[in-house]
Amino acid sequence: MLAVTILGNNSALPAFDRHPTAQVVTMDEQFFLIDCGEGTQMQMAKYKIRRSKINHIFISHLHGDHYFGLIGLLTSMGLLGRTQELHLYAPPQLKDIIDLQLKVADIQLPYQLHFHPLHEEGVIIHEAKFEVTCFPVFHRISCWGFRFREIRPFRRVNPEKARQYEVPSSFFDRLKWGESYLRKDGTLVENQWVTEPAAKAKSYAYAADTAFNETIAEKVAGVDLLYHETTYLKDLNEQAGKRFHSTTAQAATIAREAGVQRLIIGHFSSKYEKLLPFEQEAREIFPNTDLALEGVTYRI
Amino acid sequence: MLAVTILGNNSALPAFDRHPTAQVVTMDEQFFLIDCGEGTQMQMAKYKIRRSKINHIFISHLHGDHYFGLIGLLTSMGLLGRTQELHLYAPPQLKDIIDLQLKVADIQLPYQLHFHPLHEEGVIIHEAKFEVTCFPVFHRISCWGFRFREIRPFRRVNPEKARQYEVPSSFFDRLKWGESYLRKDGTLVENQWVTEPAAKAKSYAYAADTAFNETIAEKVAGVDLLYHETTYLKDLNEQAGKRFHSTTAQAATIAREAGVQRLIIGHFSSKYEKLLPFEQEAREIFPNTDLALEGVTYRI
Repeated sequence: MLAVTILGNNSALPAFDRHPTAQVVTMDEQFFLIDCGEGTQMQMAKYKIRRSKINHIFISHLHGDHYFGLIGLLTSMGLLGRTQELHLYAPPQLKDIIDLQLKVADIQLPYQLHFHPLHEEGVIIHEAKFEVTCFPVFHRISCWGFRFREIRPFRRVNPEKARQYEVPSSFFDRLKWGESYLRKDGTLVENQWVTEPAAKAKSYAYAADTAFNETIAEKVAGVDLLYHETTYLKDLNEQAGKRFHSTTAQAATIAREAGVQRLIIGHFSSKYEKLLPFEQEAREIFPNTDLALEGVTYRI
Repeated sequence: MLAVTILGNNSALPAFDRHPTAQVVTMDEQFFLIDCGEGTQMQMAKYKIRRSKINHIFISHLHGDHYFGLIGLLTSMGLLGRTQELHLYAPPQLKDIIDLQLKVADIQLPYQLHFHPLHEEGVIIHEAKFEVTCFPVFHRISCWGFRFREIRPFRRVNPEKARQYEVPSSFFDRLKWGESYLRKDGTLVENQWVTEPAAKAKSYAYAADTAFNETIAEKVAGVDLLYHETTYLKDLNEQAGKRFHSTTAQAATIAREAGVQRLIIGHFSSKYEKLLPFEQEAREIFPNTDLALEGVTYRI
């Protein structure tokens, strides 16, 4: 199961009880936190996200609405007696800020915080069951998007058929990955005789604060779920470009060009109280669009 | 009018919908913010405290639950187009943290932020109508308490009587400050013949995170309202001392020794869900004690 829960969907200035950016991806029975605006730890408490299940945190860029809640979360984890390692993926200068804040408070975290500075596009986590990559987006300062991909066998073994063809159960794992079985008598058991297609591995991409740029469509091509920022409605096209943000129409265009299954939109400017026009405008171009609403979990 | 509104009354770990420390003092038609834990700007929105009326911010010490919300507030003020000067009184290292956070975000605040590093006990603001002093308290790292004092005339002119004694209205301001009037014919009009006692100038003291220390009673002697931290109930006397915090009994003892009018208590440990025992224990020693509750304004 791959899912994302929205903890904050507003842009820089908190307004209308909407909070700065934070999302939690659920994958392989772990939580992955993307961005951590001020108040994220309170939003986690409100929506019952257990801090202890987070082992990986990703910070897209160093504008405050994407990380001012991080130091509070890190120190709270310490106060709660965490000993489990924590991995942080972020622009390099964030380490200086955290180190300085811990130093002036005379605090040592009781757990190991592994800082992974983001420098170039590519795989940042590769584990047996999932992979995370980062890709550059187009903002006023260095800013990263993230792509989450489950890794899972694409065939499912039919045990009855496998037994009929005398494939030993020790070979089942290899069947799942598409291998055929060569019996001792030299005859081949074709993979598709004893397997069926498995549920597809899921993928999610987070396109953080960014101006409209078609290369993003390549980076997120084919994902099941895409989050793309929509700070403004489409009439503020020019303002969006100047401020390195996107409109509804631009986000929906990226989703369509990338051929994704579903789009969720967020990072709404505090100038808008009502959000329905965002959904309406995006759906004109990409019908399978929903608002990224706080407290809602979008399952893939 | 001197008053204090509580925005956060919990200790380091947010819990039970209680927030980290922040208070707003109202004096001379301005707001004075004391400490600024994570989420303070959201608490200000919730309790209708207008950011634009804040010209002075005081940070007691650099544990995160007292300042992690500051940078978000400062940048939000900038996004709102503030041009009015802002004065910040805090331990010196806070300037490095703010400068670094603004630098990595490539942000310049559109208003002047005057940083006043706290180094020694004494007057930090002296204006016509009020004065603020800081005094050291006893915590694991350098930590300051603050005392707010209205400055106002202690006599009120009785205009009818003043006219009877032929005191010109141009002398009324000096009458308010206790002067007597010497008529041209050489006769003296005694001040008390034409004035009455005015309402007393009010005072408030904030004794931030601190271990029990009787010298604090001297620093806050005679104030109308004292806030003193009570992280723990009285049975955790030893733990309080070790962690440089206070118990209910200790806070109430300070209030009694200082001869204050009223005590409010806060900075409750997240280990306590119910707060009533705090009030009960403190009242055994100092009856005029109340809990510092979020959203409540304590008027003097």
